[in-house]
Amino acid sequence: MAGGALSARLGCADSCAVVTGASRGIGLALTAELLRRSRGTVVAASRQPHLSAPLRELSEDFPSRLSLLPCDVLRPASLEAMAARLAASHARVDLVLNVAGVLHDGGRVPEKSLAAVDAEWMAHVYRVNAVGPVLVAQATQPLLRPGSVVASVSARVGSIGDNHLGGWWSYRMSKAALNMATRNLAIELKRSGAIAVSLHPGTTDTDLSKPFQRNVRPEKLFTPEFTARSLLDVLEGLTLEDTGGFFAYNGERIEW
Amino acid sequence: MAGGALSARLGCADSCAVVTGASRGIGLALTAELLRRSRGTVVAASRQPHLSAPLRELSEDFPSRLSLLPCDVLRPASLEAMAARLAASHARVDLVLNVAGVLHDGGRVPEKSLAAVDAEWMAHVYRVNAVGPVLVAQATQPLLRPGSVVASVSARVGSIGDNHLGGWWSYRMSKAALNMATRNLAIELKRSGAIAVSLHPGTTDTDLSKPFQRNVRPEKLFTPEFTARSLLDVLEGLTLEDTGGFFAYNGERIEW
Repeated sequence: MAGGALSARLGCADSCAVVTGASRGIGLALTAELLRRSRGTVVAASRQPHLSAPLRELSEDFPSRLSLLPCDVLRPASLEAMAARLAASHARVDLVLNVAGVLHDGGRVPEKSLAAVDAEWMAHVYRVNAVGPVLVAQATQPLLRPGSVVASVSARVGSIGDNHLGGWWSYRMSKAALNMATRNLAIELKRSGAIAVSLHPGTTDTDLSKPFQRNVRPEKLFTPEFTARSLLDVLEGLTLEDTGGFFAYNGERIEW
Repeated sequence: MAGGALSARLGCADSCAVVTGASRGIGLALTAELLRRSRGTVVAASRQPHLSAPLRELSEDFPSRLSLLPCDVLRPASLEAMAARLAASHARVDLVLNVAGVLHDGGRVPEKSLAAVDAEWMAHVYRVNAVGPVLVAQATQPLLRPGSVVASVSARVGSIGDNHLGGWWSYRMSKAALNMATRNLAIELKRSGAIAVSLHPGTTDTDLSKPFQRNVRPEKLFTPEFTARSLLDVLEGLTLEDTGGFFAYNGERIEW
């Protein structure tokens, strides 16, 4: 897949791509792949990007093109600071990749049943997975231009129609809400010619999926590098007609 | 519509229906209509049911069949208290109606655009509209039996696929998440033979819709009584095959 406006823009030296959750997993792999594919700036945003050894290594390889940006989606003030810094350094943002997300944390595992649901955890997961990407979109909106893309990493388990197994209450609900946000964003960005989509990355060998890889067939467990290449292929092929859609790593559309 | 298991159960003197958000609007009308239609107990749950004049009047008309229950979906402890009280007085719950919800509040209006989104408000709306119904389902689950129905008042604007206008970010996202919860609940309840659905009530003349009625055609603005009758007709006609669905007031299915 190729030929979308994003593909052309990334080839320009003044292009700018922002990745949240960039310090590890899919976010890190997307950052590295963008540095390879594009000729412009890649902004790697995470809570403490300077503590990520792989991000520091990438910084040494691409000193003039990788920018590490502290950003915590749970703190609106940090999003405002990101917006100010981007506006000061760039006339436009070509790609916003919402990758930061949470599925489990310390002792918390995804709920196997309704009995395991906890209100505080459910609200926390929502703040990170659904409110966070909305705030990032809000912070970057003034810099979006025709052909810019805002892509949020959702998940097939966030498809309501495709839900046949249940469980994972907090995560599923947050991703369904995120998909609604994508749809809202697509409608709002239409006038500016920018595109918003949700993505399903497939099960990728990262800390997030680690506890749940047992039942995944080996050929269905992707390396972060494969996932990053696949998702960027999908994004580079997008046109304005695709805005508001929910796409898997192989370009297939997923139902809501 | 008629003939579902719920219809038969409501005709029994030992039936029990629980309504949240019962102090006004659609919740109040559903409470009144259930008292008319059923022969058993109706539990009217709201933050301060004893302060609702119409609920107090209904109490005088149906002293032995209406039970007022203080319940705040933002306080898990109050849900636990509800669960304990229900378990002490009833062997089963036949109908759980999640009606409590928020769209606007004081100075807060639904977001017309992304710029108006506020993280705290978005999290608050989610807690009331999505987490609340999940906690109510959790609290009543042990009392659900074959044919019992858990119905959550969602909204057509909570349909991702039907979203062509955008805006109302917090509300839309919370209702999409609620629809996911319905689907999860349906899967989890299947073994017990109980049913879970989402409902679209149509625009009803209540405090919730008051600021947004200007562009609604008069024949499309329902009285709370009409909405209550319509929704109960839909619920009384449900069978196990309908579980996990999203139904409008006229019985039509709505896409996710």
